[in-house]
Amino acid sequence: MIGLNFDKMDGLVPAVVQDHVSGEILMVGFMNPEAWQTTLQTGKATFYSRTRNTLWTKGLTSGNVQLVKEIRIDCDDDTVVLKVEQVGGAACHTGHRSCFYKRVKEDQSIEIVGKPVFDPKEVYKK
Amino acid sequence: MIGLNFDKMDGLVPAVVQDHVSGEILMVGFMNPEAWQTTLQTGKATFYSRTRNTLWTKGLTSGNVQLVKEIRIDCDDDTVVLKVEQVGGAACHTGHRSCFYKRVKEDQSIEIVGKPVFDPKEVYKK
Repeated sequence: MIGLNFDKMDGLVPAVVQDHVSGEILMVGFMNPEAWQTTLQTGKATFYSRTRNTLWTKGLTSGNVQLVKEIRIDCDDDTVVLKVEQVGGAACHTGHRSCFYKRVKEDQSIEIVGKPVFDPKEVYKK
Repeated sequence: MIGLNFDKMDGLVPAVVQDHVSGEILMVGFMNPEAWQTTLQTGKATFYSRTRNTLWTKGLTSGNVQLVKEIRIDCDDDTVVLKVEQVGGAACHTGHRSCFYKRVKEDQSIEIVGKPVFDPKEVYKK
């Protein structure tokens, strides 16, 4: 397996997920060694959930998996970029295409950019 | 100041830096509240160095500052995207335009993408 430096963050590295065509940043997750290995082996973006303390293949619940088209590693091997095809068109659990839908305006208020692609209530039925 | 959730990473949030025109991801840094406030106030990307334990305005040594053109915040307020103009054309201390110049190939070997824009020995003279 390609070695990453997991030491700086107590066993994790940040993973930035970017649309492989538009370059839009969709989300940032974290990977432990198992998530990194699973991503390499399956070609589906897989993370470690810090809040749930579990391995987490993005889209298992919603169907909105991320098919990895290209992987980049940074200069000091402690951060990853995944260029992906976002199945379903939305990465965020709120239904927005990107998790980064809040823009900081000049006056430091927040503007919501874009509208949700799906209704979370429909997708995450309990 | 716009509130971020610094609790998940012991006082830090990841900050992804993206070229404001091309969308290329240049680097990922970390911000503490002071770095976040300094970035908002000065319009220059400022981070907290985990290795040097100090506030760090990108480009102070090399001259390659990052002029912030747009700021995005994610759904749960614990990650930031900065869209910047990269002065000098290169974000990485190795002289590469982006820190993410290592591409993982099909056979899981590493390919270097692109050539350095500057010679680090010339820029970081001691």
